[in-house]
Amino acid sequence: MTDLMEKITSLCKRRGFIFQSSEIYGGVEALWDYGPLGSLLKDNIKNEWLKKFVQTKNDVVLIDGTCLMHPNVWKASGHLEHFTDPLVECKNCHSRFRADHMAAGRFIGEGKAKAKNQCPQCGGKDFTSPKQFNLMFKTFLGPIEDEAHMTYLRPETAQSMFTNFKNIQELMRLKLPFGIAQIGRCFRNEITTGDFTFRTREFDIAEIEYFVKPGEDEKWFEYWVGEWENFFLDLGLKKENLRRYEHPKEALSHYSKRTVDIEYKFPFGWSELAGIANRTDYDLKRHSEYSRQDLRYYDEEEKKKYYPYVIEPTVGIERIVLALLCDAYEEIKGGRTKTTKPTKEVEILLKLDKKIAPIKIAVLPLVKNKPELVKKAKEVYQLLKPHFICQYDELGSIGRRYRRGDEIGVICSITCDFQTLKDDTVTLRDRDSMRQIRVEIVKLQEIITKILEGEEFLKLGKLVK
Amino acid sequence: MTDLMEKITSLCKRRGFIFQSSEIYGGVEALWDYGPLGSLLKDNIKNEWLKKFVQTKNDVVLIDGTCLMHPNVWKASGHLEHFTDPLVECKNCHSRFRADHMAAGRFIGEGKAKAKNQCPQCGGKDFTSPKQFNLMFKTFLGPIEDEAHMTYLRPETAQSMFTNFKNIQELMRLKLPFGIAQIGRCFRNEITTGDFTFRTREFDIAEIEYFVKPGEDEKWFEYWVGEWENFFLDLGLKKENLRRYEHPKEALSHYSKRTVDIEYKFPFGWSELAGIANRTDYDLKRHSEYSRQDLRYYDEEEKKKYYPYVIEPTVGIERIVLALLCDAYEEIKGGRTKTTKPTKEVEILLKLDKKIAPIKIAVLPLVKNKPELVKKAKEVYQLLKPHFICQYDELGSIGRRYRRGDEIGVICSITCDFQTLKDDTVTLRDRDSMRQIRVEIVKLQEIITKILEGEEFLKLGKLVK
Repeated sequence: MTDLMEKITSLCKRRGFIFQSSEIYGGVEALWDYGPLGSLLKDNIKNEWLKKFVQTKNDVVLIDGTCLMHPNVWKASGHLEHFTDPLVECKNCHSRFRADHMAAGRFIGEGKAKAKNQCPQCGGKDFTSPKQFNLMFKTFLGPIEDEAHMTYLRPETAQSMFTNFKNIQELMRLKLPFGIAQIGRCFRNEITTGDFTFRTREFDIAEIEYFVKPGEDEKWFEYWVGEWENFFLDLGLKKENLRRYEHPKEALSHYSKRTVDIEYKFPFGWSELAGIANRTDYDLKRHSEYSRQDLRYYDEEEKKKYYPYVIEPTVGIERIVLALLCDAYEEIKGGRTKTTKPTKEVEILLKLDKKIAPIKIAVLPLVKNKPELVKKAKEVYQLLKPHFICQYDELGSIGRRYRRGDEIGVICSITCDFQTLKDDTVTLRDRDSMRQIRVEIVKLQEIITKILEGEEFLKLGKLVK
Repeated sequence: MTDLMEKITSLCKRRGFIFQSSEIYGGVEALWDYGPLGSLLKDNIKNEWLKKFVQTKNDVVLIDGTCLMHPNVWKASGHLEHFTDPLVECKNCHSRFRADHMAAGRFIGEGKAKAKNQCPQCGGKDFTSPKQFNLMFKTFLGPIEDEAHMTYLRPETAQSMFTNFKNIQELMRLKLPFGIAQIGRCFRNEITTGDFTFRTREFDIAEIEYFVKPGEDEKWFEYWVGEWENFFLDLGLKKENLRRYEHPKEALSHYSKRTVDIEYKFPFGWSELAGIANRTDYDLKRHSEYSRQDLRYYDEEEKKKYYPYVIEPTVGIERIVLALLCDAYEEIKGGRTKTTKPTKEVEILLKLDKKIAPIKIAVLPLVKNKPELVKKAKEVYQLLKPHFICQYDELGSIGRRYRRGDEIGVICSITCDFQTLKDDTVTLRDRDSMRQIRVEIVKLQEIITKILEGEEFLKLGKLVK
């Protein structure tokens, strides 16, 4: 793991963004729980996505489908046949690894790998030839554990948008082009994991199946690549850390005519953040064939039936979280504050976008040992809490509390000091500029709303620092 | 199924609230997909819950844990041992059923049951004696399908709040009493299902583990029963359709000192909507024992360590959806509108609360064949769409469109008519009173905001009808 990834992993644990699942039992590899800050961050991303792609679009509807589906869905989708990784087994200790990752020297628990093409468990060098292993988790519906009752946890949300296509199109009276959107939990039985939360066995995908007239698919493909990129820029990711990667024709998935990944420059290298695929009419045709239902679309203008093409923009919410954390993470050696004497400490600033930061506001009494200040600060906290995600913090020096806020991306810190007791004003400190303004408590709600909407901080109150 | 349940099931399908999962493959029993309206309804409920129990509480933090966990979690929690149903097998056709439900004459696909204690598949009367069947879905982590790699899909979200208890308490510096909250997907391999979406194999649970000082548990138990009831009343459920059910001591779960269900009067009878359990220190003790970690809380005032007690209020989001639909459903014979001649039709009104209704606003041109009206209505729709969940509808007579809106609970319908073209005003029709007011388009956003906040409709514009 790179130095920066180690620092981010440590920050995530220390400040309650991300914990290893079942940690008290030694954890389970590639399963992560999102703590108080991480879960807020995930929710903020989901809400921005819903706002941009469902609420303000005229032609996209939302669904919320099940993770367990009829086993034939996975036959029709091609997942049973194609959703596999090549596995090799160490002939000495019988550990199993992904053949392609082993060739590249990547293993579960990368730290243990001694050298390329050596078993990271025992050091053995003799392996079986690769066998295909299906990455879907299997389970059984009902009490009988046989082939007929076997099904799989979805590895993507797409299929329920195809199986519901006809119902939704007809009942909601939708005309091409239109989209069905979904955010939901997905599961993949990954063999080689690593890079913190980058490749995991359980994650939330946000995706859209956008149904278009054949022949218009290439135009819409371009459109969705642009929409997806803009979404990541809107969330605050730096432009220079994003790029497009065009999948070569020979490496496309079984259903895809064209695939473009949006890659992010993670500390461990450029890697897939999101993808846009032109799935053609593959899915609707296959589901028609396997279900013996006619899933063609009736075009009223052309008076004929056909299978729409599908453009699929897709992204993992947790990958956005990881990209945002990497992008926002800054270290300032010697401390940020120039008015106090420089320290040897390294200060951390998490420059998360205002829309995304999990905690918007910190309310702080200047000192803890003055009951009237504490009382006042708690009143301000109660006043703001119904409207903004706030925290109250009284522990340690005011400088230390500012730094604690900076480290998790708190947008604005409000301090109640002795002047507050006289005139009911407080100071507001801006995270990024560290400038401070003084404002009346009665105007706080309005002013914070403006700050979060992006209005210029210094114009909103009387400059103090 | 009762007559009313059939009507609600039909409405849910017809209008895009709920579809059977994998319907084109004949469906999978007890798995339901939430369509465009159903998914919005679910999201609204979740957001209200988060607002009430996380955002505006000082002492509750949110997490988002994984569905797959370490297998030892389920040993410690008691689920491997206790989370079972008694199953019997028909000796003739080998179908399996829940012994307790068979005794009551309830089966999967209830319609088929001919008589109590007869096999609904073949009519046979000879059964094996009951065996315990575990309701957790099992699967395997990694490529090796043996006992050591077997784990389960969570049947509740609670356990990740216990396994993360110590991390969260220490890192977030929380003092008793405090709560950890979570909304997430859960899975139960139910054998006997039925009653539409009431008992399903996959659902979203919202629950809080509220950690308290032993001795204060009974007080907090009462508090949370009250909070839970108030939440359902806030969502608009009728008081007379809610009641408390106290579990008798001898029927309590293995971990519970006291359990109260909030029951709702569903069309098929009073049934569990939500529950509040006093889990005592059972979970933290068991996880300490099984993980060999010390999960006790250090009480700074008392200078000692102890296991907190846990009060757990819990509710299934989809049960709230079903209760809300049943509660809001009204039929008006002969039609609602008195100004037009009575019809033989039965009109449906879905009186969902303003906070909860999936579509808030419908924008309608008076007639479809006047391009200037259609253009104007579309402009109004575009104006409002970024701020409210809106739909645009131009199909059929204006009366028919009002009824179509009433059927899905649209709060307010906006009509653009010929006067609109003259003076840029529109009519607003209130769903419940059917009264209409006339307002200026420029004031629409403000007025709709007030309507949704509960201000009196007739005070917001000039009365028309």
